[in-house]
Amino acid sequence: MMFKKRMNADEAKEIFLNVIKPVSGHELLPVEHCDGRSVAEDIIAGIDVPHYRRAAMDGYAVRASDTLGAGSGSPVVLKLGQSIEKGMCIRVHTGSPVPEGADAVVMLEDTASHGGSVEIYAQVHPLKNVGEIGEDVRGGEAVLRKNQRLRPCDIAVLASLGIQSINVMRKPLVAVIPTGEELVPRGERELKAGEVFETNGLMASLYIRKWGGLPRLLDIVTDDPEKIREAIKSNLDVDMIIISGGTSVGRRDYVPSVVGSMGELLVHGVGISPGKPTALSIISGKPVVCMPGYPVAGIVALYFFARPGLRKLASLPDEPDRCVRAVLSEKITSRTGYKTFARVKLENGKAIPLATSGAGILSSVSKADGFVIIPPNIEGLSAGEEVDVVLIE
Amino acid sequence: MMFKKRMNADEAKEIFLNVIKPVSGHELLPVEHCDGRSVAEDIIAGIDVPHYRRAAMDGYAVRASDTLGAGSGSPVVLKLGQSIEKGMCIRVHTGSPVPEGADAVVMLEDTASHGGSVEIYAQVHPLKNVGEIGEDVRGGEAVLRKNQRLRPCDIAVLASLGIQSINVMRKPLVAVIPTGEELVPRGERELKAGEVFETNGLMASLYIRKWGGLPRLLDIVTDDPEKIREAIKSNLDVDMIIISGGTSVGRRDYVPSVVGSMGELLVHGVGISPGKPTALSIISGKPVVCMPGYPVAGIVALYFFARPGLRKLASLPDEPDRCVRAVLSEKITSRTGYKTFARVKLENGKAIPLATSGAGILSSVSKADGFVIIPPNIEGLSAGEEVDVVLIE
Repeated sequence: MMFKKRMNADEAKEIFLNVIKPVSGHELLPVEHCDGRSVAEDIIAGIDVPHYRRAAMDGYAVRASDTLGAGSGSPVVLKLGQSIEKGMCIRVHTGSPVPEGADAVVMLEDTASHGGSVEIYAQVHPLKNVGEIGEDVRGGEAVLRKNQRLRPCDIAVLASLGIQSINVMRKPLVAVIPTGEELVPRGERELKAGEVFETNGLMASLYIRKWGGLPRLLDIVTDDPEKIREAIKSNLDVDMIIISGGTSVGRRDYVPSVVGSMGELLVHGVGISPGKPTALSIISGKPVVCMPGYPVAGIVALYFFARPGLRKLASLPDEPDRCVRAVLSEKITSRTGYKTFARVKLENGKAIPLATSGAGILSSVSKADGFVIIPPNIEGLSAGEEVDVVLIE
Repeated sequence: MMFKKRMNADEAKEIFLNVIKPVSGHELLPVEHCDGRSVAEDIIAGIDVPHYRRAAMDGYAVRASDTLGAGSGSPVVLKLGQSIEKGMCIRVHTGSPVPEGADAVVMLEDTASHGGSVEIYAQVHPLKNVGEIGEDVRGGEAVLRKNQRLRPCDIAVLASLGIQSINVMRKPLVAVIPTGEELVPRGERELKAGEVFETNGLMASLYIRKWGGLPRLLDIVTDDPEKIREAIKSNLDVDMIIISGGTSVGRRDYVPSVVGSMGELLVHGVGISPGKPTALSIISGKPVVCMPGYPVAGIVALYFFARPGLRKLASLPDEPDRCVRAVLSEKITSRTGYKTFARVKLENGKAIPLATSGAGILSSVSKADGFVIIPPNIEGLSAGEEVDVVLIE
């Protein structure tokens, strides 16, 4: 098999995302288990918060009109009581109800208490230090919108409404199929020449979990088109499939032709470096990312295709990468036509390119703090340039 | 109780972090459960990766000296064999062993096969397309360092070495104690005037989990110094305590005096806004964050004190916040002397300040995408200024 025409990285991503439909299933979960999830429907407040007029300060609830003319040298004296009538006040704490008849709270610091009477040293206007009913959340208002990603502070708002559980989108299920006759399950036995331990499937599964999916890591499949076909066929119940390895154009690279024969091969050969042998496909409506077996190329394919694909499946909004600005310590060369993911290490505000022989060196990712992403229309970056380093999660 | 002298925000943080010692316990975990954890000891590679000389390309393994003078118009013809001697070659795939006697691989594209002989159209130098033993990881090398935070790509390196499980630092255990006689467990029953559902303890617990700790959310404790003391005393087995509410200087604010009587009150009253009533303490060697009951102030105290404290406990490196640059749509005023956390919403590259009445409005955090943090020596920011927005996780 040959590559299809090499496709521009952004175009390939767009084509891939266009075939993906968000999963439709919901699940009802206790709010304390909803961190990071996508809300399945608008959440309407059933009550006002607060549901009563509350004091915003420790002090005395009063009729504002009774404080007219009060000042530091000219106190107004009010009678301490249990209910509010003209000339009376009631002690209140922050958060406690403002009694009927009162329309303001004078803060404690502006008062002096003498047994049954209180000297008021400040004039207050109506509503001063009074939290109105519904000032935080109004009953009937949508406090959360469909497809909003929940954070702990949003869950606290749900809790403030007394909500115990809500519907969230279910997590997309992702089958991860490692392929390659050279692969051995890690630690199973000593390796012979030509064998390596399986790492890409494990890595993909962990990223899928981190990014909001549920990984299903399958057993290693050897380089046999029928075995690959069977593995895909028996996992079409999932929402996305990631296949690692066998994506290039060598004699043992069967994955693109197999996925092509089972569905549509959308892309094979992408202008990303490393990661050119990436293939993207759709089979029975399920998006398939075929990540190269070379681990550095594999992680780039995961970041650039699997992650946005998973977010779309999960109805999660795109979010900016965790980035730091740094100054390049040395030049980086890149190939025009390829969006290049250069591994760098950060040290004292400098981004130090990791000079390595290539996409097969897994430890070079582990040594890297992040990627400097170089657009395809540029031939490289010079030493001393300020760059954004996308931290590898 | 009065505030101690109001303390500068950064100074308060430094004092707090200085009393915190990382937890010392380890746990042995399968590598697939180690994402986000801190490595407990240097990890030394037990094997070389690769442990054999591997072909970096599909093609033919050769003796480089046999290709001398080969070019596109002047092929060298080698005999296809099972072992390498002068004038012979062997077919290899990417990743397969380079046979003994061979010292280079000619890529397939530069060859033509004719039955038992192969035309070689390119001269190669020794080691061309040959991955040397240990080129990825050398046996005996430290692949991960103590206190490094594990990412999926680091775990893949462990897997490449056949490692099944490693020692990681245990997660710090954090007791979260919500206090306040106005609090009702969420959804338990309808609220009376003066009552609210508990939200801060839940929110703190979820942030603790997100940031790498194990929360222990306790039942609500009423505003009674003895009850607060008991709750703290019976939870001193944890690594950190977070108490919510009762931190101000009102009649019902017992928390600072209780923690002060049980240990050392390091800080009470901080130059952060909102969040001034935050108190920090250490009791029997356990750091205590007393977060204000006002939810917006509470979340600021969590971000500014609990998060770095937890990271230090967990031996996790500090990491940059997820930030975006944006242009302020309106001015923000702030008080000098206070590090101000202004809530903003992001829209089309603009940061829109959320004008709200104060720290009691929980929904204002939920409506915000992030904080613009204004240093204490500035009086505010002008409309049109470019700012960093720290996204709320």
